[in-house]
Amino acid sequence: MYENMIVIDRQSGESLQMQVRRQLAIGIVQRQFPLNEPLPSIRRLATDLKVSVTTITLAYRTLKADGFVISRKRSGYFVNPDVLADPGHKARAGEPTAGTTALSRVDYGKLFRGRSFDRERVVKPADSLVRYRYSFVCGLIDPSLFPLGQWRECVRDAVGAVGVANCATDFSETDDQMLVEQLIQRVLARRGIFARPDEVLVTVGGQQALYIAIRLLLAPGETIGVEDPGYPDVVNMARIDGINVERLAVDEEGLILSRRVGRCKCLYVTPSHQFPTTVTMPLARKSRLLELTRRHGQFVIEDDYESEVSFNKTPPRALKSLDRWGNVIYVGSLSKSLLQGLRLGYLVADREFIREARALRHYMLRHPPVNNQRSVALFLQRGYFDRFVAKLTGIYSRRCDAMHEELERHFPGAAVKPEYGGSIIWVKLPEDVDAGVLHDLVEPEGVFFETGGFTFSDERNHRNHIRLGYSVIDEALIPEGIDRIARAVPEARRAGPAPEAVTTREGPGHPED
Amino acid sequence: MYENMIVIDRQSGESLQMQVRRQLAIGIVQRQFPLNEPLPSIRRLATDLKVSVTTITLAYRTLKADGFVISRKRSGYFVNPDVLADPGHKARAGEPTAGTTALSRVDYGKLFRGRSFDRERVVKPADSLVRYRYSFVCGLIDPSLFPLGQWRECVRDAVGAVGVANCATDFSETDDQMLVEQLIQRVLARRGIFARPDEVLVTVGGQQALYIAIRLLLAPGETIGVEDPGYPDVVNMARIDGINVERLAVDEEGLILSRRVGRCKCLYVTPSHQFPTTVTMPLARKSRLLELTRRHGQFVIEDDYESEVSFNKTPPRALKSLDRWGNVIYVGSLSKSLLQGLRLGYLVADREFIREARALRHYMLRHPPVNNQRSVALFLQRGYFDRFVAKLTGIYSRRCDAMHEELERHFPGAAVKPEYGGSIIWVKLPEDVDAGVLHDLVEPEGVFFETGGFTFSDERNHRNHIRLGYSVIDEALIPEGIDRIARAVPEARRAGPAPEAVTTREGPGHPED
Repeated sequence: MYENMIVIDRQSGESLQMQVRRQLAIGIVQRQFPLNEPLPSIRRLATDLKVSVTTITLAYRTLKADGFVISRKRSGYFVNPDVLADPGHKARAGEPTAGTTALSRVDYGKLFRGRSFDRERVVKPADSLVRYRYSFVCGLIDPSLFPLGQWRECVRDAVGAVGVANCATDFSETDDQMLVEQLIQRVLARRGIFARPDEVLVTVGGQQALYIAIRLLLAPGETIGVEDPGYPDVVNMARIDGINVERLAVDEEGLILSRRVGRCKCLYVTPSHQFPTTVTMPLARKSRLLELTRRHGQFVIEDDYESEVSFNKTPPRALKSLDRWGNVIYVGSLSKSLLQGLRLGYLVADREFIREARALRHYMLRHPPVNNQRSVALFLQRGYFDRFVAKLTGIYSRRCDAMHEELERHFPGAAVKPEYGGSIIWVKLPEDVDAGVLHDLVEPEGVFFETGGFTFSDERNHRNHIRLGYSVIDEALIPEGIDRIARAVPEARRAGPAPEAVTTREGPGHPED
Repeated sequence: MYENMIVIDRQSGESLQMQVRRQLAIGIVQRQFPLNEPLPSIRRLATDLKVSVTTITLAYRTLKADGFVISRKRSGYFVNPDVLADPGHKARAGEPTAGTTALSRVDYGKLFRGRSFDRERVVKPADSLVRYRYSFVCGLIDPSLFPLGQWRECVRDAVGAVGVANCATDFSETDDQMLVEQLIQRVLARRGIFARPDEVLVTVGGQQALYIAIRLLLAPGETIGVEDPGYPDVVNMARIDGINVERLAVDEEGLILSRRVGRCKCLYVTPSHQFPTTVTMPLARKSRLLELTRRHGQFVIEDDYESEVSFNKTPPRALKSLDRWGNVIYVGSLSKSLLQGLRLGYLVADREFIREARALRHYMLRHPPVNNQRSVALFLQRGYFDRFVAKLTGIYSRRCDAMHEELERHFPGAAVKPEYGGSIIWVKLPEDVDAGVLHDLVEPEGVFFETGGFTFSDERNHRNHIRLGYSVIDEALIPEGIDRIARAVPEARRAGPAPEAVTTREGPGHPED
């Protein structure tokens, strides 16, 4: 009767006991076992599934402890009828559904014509870490470097804490207080920013912080200045809200303070570590930028992405740390160095601004998940984050040196050595190299990198830029990886530009991700 | 030297070993121990802190395993210099900061004048679970009912799975596949909805699903119809985007299909379990609603909040399950019965719609945290969710009966018995009772409930409504709790309406939270 219901997969990572337990539990709640007949005996299950009697015994014991089954003397285990108290369980198959095709359907194409949100956006290539031996992918983290044990400990300890805290607070109005404290003491203080708790808002990644800042600072028809090259998602975010975008050129000191800056109500900048060129704005220009924007009554969104990975004894100061007037909205994130998918960011700004940001966040999603706020707070509080970042920084710094040396050898003067730190090198190849073609040439050789052209407003004339991440590649493999790219360059030049070669949806990731 | 740096708190829930370890680790990364001198000896620490030698030994061993300290033969433990590789650690105190008051500051009041997001919004009262013996708070869950052990197991197992999965996928483009499968098979199928994976989008709570649906379906100047009484956050969400709101009356069969429905491009409805009245729209009216909106080319956002808690053998069908034309956008959430702060919701709609919703979600925050997606997927897959909901439903159903009986005794005909299920009873008190006054009268008696007036467009004439949640109150305390409310009613009538008594920011929670 239970045959085919329980299938043992010995290749699976799941323990045999868990496999048995899970499948029995599902069968029970799906009413596949009669209430008044004994469940399959321990011995019979063990024989049929070819697992030990102990495995089945433990599975049944846990099911009993969990209330799925009850035991009756000498008769064995039975389904616990209480589990089936849920009456509406059986799905009604065969009825009209979301997927049913009917004669006439809504024309969603018409609804979204001219106002589609589905623009070309930047996403990570799938499997980039697994598939390539020489992976210069950007924005991913080598899972073997992550202190999974310490993280697991914090996650475990956060489960209980959150359960209790939950009942006492509305997290829409107050973020996890331990997290805010830790951000202030350990993360922001390192950037020279001394904030009060009511000047900090926790967000679902840096992306939400940016979205909120843009929505609050700019109304449709107003203008935001975005670096060129710069982060394309910000351009799209602004445009879907009807906000105009002014692209502002960048030199080796970051954003150029040209007259065009004056046209913008708000500037989006990455001063400490420009995206994507990685150049650092010197203190003098930072001060001038503040003075200028103050005079014009402008706002500045400072995206301090990946700020934790700094190679310097005294990292260049955040713009926000110099802000005496309060017109700088600071965006940070921890998702970069913490587990990729965690999505934890923050906004730092004047209290009045944070109050509005919290209100908008409430309508967008109420609040970021509470369990992750607490897990990260513990990870910071116990010093694990500091230690992990110190380790990463050491490794990245060595890899960066190795990469830059190798790049200098093959393409003298082409690579920008990141002054601040981070995990990516920006390279300007000879003008006649199409990075998209080059990408396709080396890909079968096990080499992956990201093209940089589409961070420019004028993509067509900047197809010779590439981004080489060093967050996952082993130091020892760097020379061969760069060499393979260099060897393919002559062929890429001969091949000439592929029409629209770089407009795939694969491209550089968000600075915050 | 280390005095005052390590403080043992014997009242704390944290183990002594962890307290020592954490504080030593922090001292180390903050460079409070000299590099070339031994750290305090095991014996000395044990004596000074009055803890056992074993505790200190274990603390040092773990610190060593974690790389914070190294041991030198016969000299004891030393700081591991690698931990300090992070150079920028020391905060620069005393420099200008976010909070510094300068002579002239940005006038944020001016920026937000006329376009503030900070409207009166619905938040949970703090400490409502802990503070009141007779707590009829809405939307919280009794932590003692939650299967914390099973949840902990899923969280633990998700840590590893996510670490690996992370490297392979961009979660902006694809949600956790196990979660989507489980939602389809276990959650949506029970509502009669048979969706394909590309018809489902995971969101940060039901709130984000609503926000996205409204943004996608309506442009500024267009009109959304919202039930009256109904969920106020939807009204605010629409208005901050310049969308007009048409309030549509509700009777004992839910939304009335009046001519005013025709004025709306889109309707927001809670048909299975109306918010806040809890009435269920009969099948016949659901069919007419679909026919009507189809004829007018309108869209319907169906908020099926708390749908998992159904008291019926065959729960009333979701509107979406009857949708053959594809104009229904379905919003659901698991945060209600799962841990409060988890924020996990979903949208179900035609593929074309989901594609746009995914794009907007990307700009808003890229994707919901991956670890929570997997934890919940496991919780569903292992049958824990079904079992937990079955248990909750049994308990809620009994409490609901007890509440309704008691309310009938004191206020005949005033309470709506929830046909669908859920966790809240809606009560219309005599017209001359101001629920805000009543609330304040019983509050010192240890009774808490929520006022219902502000779910109406015309709050002033509906101050006699209250919402009584039964998700946290013990069944045995229900009669006394209701009795205390009833006893205060005569005084509330005498007191007359308090001016603006109900416009505090405390009020009913989001149906989805």
